[in-house]
Amino acid sequence: MPYRAPVEDFQFLFDHVVGLDRVTATDRFAEATPDVTSAILTEAGKLCEEVLAPLQRPGDLHPAKLENGVVRTSPGFAEGYKAIAEGGWVAIAADPEHGGMGLPMTVTTAVNDMMSAACLSLQLSPLMTQGQIEALEHHASDDLKAIYLPKLVSGEWTGTMNLTEAQAGSDVGALSTKAVSNDDGTYAITGQKIYISWGDNDFTPNVCHLVLARLPDAKPGTKGISLFLVPKFIPDETGEPGRANDLKVVSLEHKMGLHGSPTAVMQYDGATGWLVGEEHDGMRAMFTMMNNARLGVGTQGVGVADGAYQHALAYAKDRKQGRSTIQNGTGTIIDHANVRRMLATMKAETFAARAIALTCAAAIDMETATAAPDWAARAAFLTPIAKAFGTYTGISVANMGIQLHGGMGFIEETGAAQYLRDVRVTAIYEGTNGIQAMDLVGRKLMDGGEAAYALLDEIESTAEAARAEHPELAEPVWQATESLREATEWMVAQNDMNNRFAGAVPFLRAFARVLGGHAHLLAAMHDTDGSRARLARFYITRILPEAQAHIAHATAGADDLYALAPEDFAA
Amino acid sequence: MPYRAPVEDFQFLFDHVVGLDRVTATDRFAEATPDVTSAILTEAGKLCEEVLAPLQRPGDLHPAKLENGVVRTSPGFAEGYKAIAEGGWVAIAADPEHGGMGLPMTVTTAVNDMMSAACLSLQLSPLMTQGQIEALEHHASDDLKAIYLPKLVSGEWTGTMNLTEAQAGSDVGALSTKAVSNDDGTYAITGQKIYISWGDNDFTPNVCHLVLARLPDAKPGTKGISLFLVPKFIPDETGEPGRANDLKVVSLEHKMGLHGSPTAVMQYDGATGWLVGEEHDGMRAMFTMMNNARLGVGTQGVGVADGAYQHALAYAKDRKQGRSTIQNGTGTIIDHANVRRMLATMKAETFAARAIALTCAAAIDMETATAAPDWAARAAFLTPIAKAFGTYTGISVANMGIQLHGGMGFIEETGAAQYLRDVRVTAIYEGTNGIQAMDLVGRKLMDGGEAAYALLDEIESTAEAARAEHPELAEPVWQATESLREATEWMVAQNDMNNRFAGAVPFLRAFARVLGGHAHLLAAMHDTDGSRARLARFYITRILPEAQAHIAHATAGADDLYALAPEDFAA
Repeated sequence: MPYRAPVEDFQFLFDHVVGLDRVTATDRFAEATPDVTSAILTEAGKLCEEVLAPLQRPGDLHPAKLENGVVRTSPGFAEGYKAIAEGGWVAIAADPEHGGMGLPMTVTTAVNDMMSAACLSLQLSPLMTQGQIEALEHHASDDLKAIYLPKLVSGEWTGTMNLTEAQAGSDVGALSTKAVSNDDGTYAITGQKIYISWGDNDFTPNVCHLVLARLPDAKPGTKGISLFLVPKFIPDETGEPGRANDLKVVSLEHKMGLHGSPTAVMQYDGATGWLVGEEHDGMRAMFTMMNNARLGVGTQGVGVADGAYQHALAYAKDRKQGRSTIQNGTGTIIDHANVRRMLATMKAETFAARAIALTCAAAIDMETATAAPDWAARAAFLTPIAKAFGTYTGISVANMGIQLHGGMGFIEETGAAQYLRDVRVTAIYEGTNGIQAMDLVGRKLMDGGEAAYALLDEIESTAEAARAEHPELAEPVWQATESLREATEWMVAQNDMNNRFAGAVPFLRAFARVLGGHAHLLAAMHDTDGSRARLARFYITRILPEAQAHIAHATAGADDLYALAPEDFAA
Repeated sequence: MPYRAPVEDFQFLFDHVVGLDRVTATDRFAEATPDVTSAILTEAGKLCEEVLAPLQRPGDLHPAKLENGVVRTSPGFAEGYKAIAEGGWVAIAADPEHGGMGLPMTVTTAVNDMMSAACLSLQLSPLMTQGQIEALEHHASDDLKAIYLPKLVSGEWTGTMNLTEAQAGSDVGALSTKAVSNDDGTYAITGQKIYISWGDNDFTPNVCHLVLARLPDAKPGTKGISLFLVPKFIPDETGEPGRANDLKVVSLEHKMGLHGSPTAVMQYDGATGWLVGEEHDGMRAMFTMMNNARLGVGTQGVGVADGAYQHALAYAKDRKQGRSTIQNGTGTIIDHANVRRMLATMKAETFAARAIALTCAAAIDMETATAAPDWAARAAFLTPIAKAFGTYTGISVANMGIQLHGGMGFIEETGAAQYLRDVRVTAIYEGTNGIQAMDLVGRKLMDGGEAAYALLDEIESTAEAARAEHPELAEPVWQATESLREATEWMVAQNDMNNRFAGAVPFLRAFARVLGGHAHLLAAMHDTDGSRARLARFYITRILPEAQAHIAHATAGADDLYALAPEDFAA
């Protein structure tokens, strides 16, 4: 499975689509000069190509195992993780005060994208650590920061997120894990958590769990949740791992994919934990971690889409089958119109999803650098789109990659199927894509649509600017944006939230389609050799029209859904 | 995994959507009275619910294995197969002269649908046998028929199809397996075939291979292919299995799913075979078998869609999560708008795909009964749509089923993931869905669109008839049909086949959407309790609009695709 890091694509997107220059013009990110960014992309790309990509298949074939209570990771993963940590790639966005490089989230997103493409199951570990670092930087006491952040940022220790319980998944407020004060500044945590990605490993001396739990006097629901840091080994006076905490991995899940990533059921039996943030205020800290992780998971989807695309392309360029139907063809299946249509779809979709993730990251950077409410609103609005559309794209591109391989696609040795099996969970974890869509049409439109309209205005400005040179691209983008504006107005006008929720997923998809059209239009405008304009034409002519169908679905309201009685669903 | 056979749904479709009464009004199918059909559906349904569905998971967990050259099938599969054969379910459409019941393909399709939903990997064996029976009935000598058909129809022996070779997949004409006359009426077959579904088993005393091969004087390409019947054991004078033939299973594939079905690499070393049909005329016989199998594979997709839907519905009706947002809710996640939207999508799509498969089957029956060219043309036109859309629906519904389960969907014990892993291959085998679409816009429009327009005329007549009672359903169906007519006219006008092929897949999908709209409209017109009209409204309002997007994609032509140079695809 050869993988080539798409360094030029990131550079182009930074320069012409997501506006990284605006980010690096701020004091906060002034050190992220083009030279630094370029070196980062090149070095990280090399790690992904040479060290991580070769771990993809062993991770699938030899899943992480639980042996006598100890997690044994897949062959090569310990060395791969060490290479990530030693290269400083776990947390390049972290505060330099704790060993990070303070780089923009935009650059982190590009690095996460490449690591996900190369080996998703291993990349999930640093992604979890990144979320934990973000949460601790914003909400932990200085004492906790001093002990944990340097270890996490360096990758010496790893971090996990413990939210879900058997009866508390999408409804996190239903969780019942208990926390009781030990009257010494620590708390005793008791309960069982499920779906804990990288709940343990055999290559770092400590694993730090962020655990949501309830204090005895907690209100029901999300307002009664507190966040605790619960290490596998309690740091001693020197900050090194000391006595084992009262927690254990009960079992590992047998999953459809992502076999290299141990997904644990964690049991806490009065484990010692430290409060992060205020009592009963755990949801706020959790959202810091979740928002970071949501963009990160969307980026996982983008990376896998690229990996699957490159994998399919290599096959198409090699496979001979049938007579070529064009003059001066290559003699391989890339000459066939339907194969070329599939490849173009995969490439155009991946570009769109990548542009959305990086645009979201740049908005987060601008929020970080300027604290401006407009940037915060944009980052918040784009996060569920980046998460849901990135993962949707990962799944659809990986699925198309299988199809492109014909019969070989169904044979595991080929590797095409693994991309789909691995990436499938990204549409589910860190808030299902349905939850993302409900967040978009609910919370993220609570501003009366202001953040949405600002984006739509910007897209229409781009379309106006492009009209002279690319009329056949600018007009459909402008039209689709206008239709989406009307759909947004319709959404904002719905006071019955079920009318919004009934169309949430198609609304999100329509928004992503239009944002994708915007990215392709910008690409065409800044194209130097014609190839990006050709791809833009493909996307805008053939894929963007889907937005209209999604809008029809999005604005149909809830009445027809609830007219369907539960009995109507009987088989 | 409880499965309930959807007997009432079939009955409704027979009576009001596919016109089974027209089929049973013919002499050929006069014996398929409503009583007979009803008894068949009920009995087959019972087998699927009680015997086959419990084999679904064991087949996945314990794949068929090759041990010392012998295939060992999954636990319970031998007993399951025996129940299928003893119940007479292998080939109910086969000629009564050889032990079949001579029932319509429409009824066979319903039975195949249920068997696929219950246990796809086992059902694939009788499906292969059905194709072989069809090929032998039409093309074999009376001697061969007398020896083989009774054994195949009873299920005592099984049949396979051997087409593909490593360098001859979609391009079957590239195959190189050799056949040399033994000058005694038999031929010596030498070569290697791949992807042979149920290439062997340990529960029948013989396995009969239909093998495509080339005679020494054969022209290159498809015009030089002949078809041979090559049994595992050569029948002795009494017709019972005699000496072992010179063939063997080399290996079994390690696949993404369908683990219970052994997919073999078959080696023929001068194996003894008998010619089926004329020398060099193997493609014609193969198409008899392929067309049958294509509808059968489309039906596999429909069955799995139904299985995945029922599985997800059972979960949704049980799972409590979050506050209900409606009055008088059930308290389960079925109250949530987005969950209900997913379930309605799954049910509406499955109904549409099922209607298309059964409509295709009914056209085949009318062709069989009347030999009328119009029915033959309709059957030929609908076959690629039934295959591609049925399997596409199987994949998309199974994928949505995973999503509906949330985190549980990614855990193998739940069973949701298996539906997707199993059904994924159906979009690939028996001609990839891309090949189906190219067949549709190529060969199947060679009549100048006559068969297509006849279907569109019929849909518009239905829409006119429905206009008074269901104006809000009839109008969008009529409009979508008109748009599709224009797209069909555009296709027919393209002399450069690449213009057709560049839009083949979206054209097929648009056609399926409109046929689905027709089926839902008919369902609404004949609805007795309102539930079918409600589902029709959902489909026509929310899903049918996709046809327009597909049409834009379908009619974009090939220029922009071929403007993309192979270098443009570089990552």
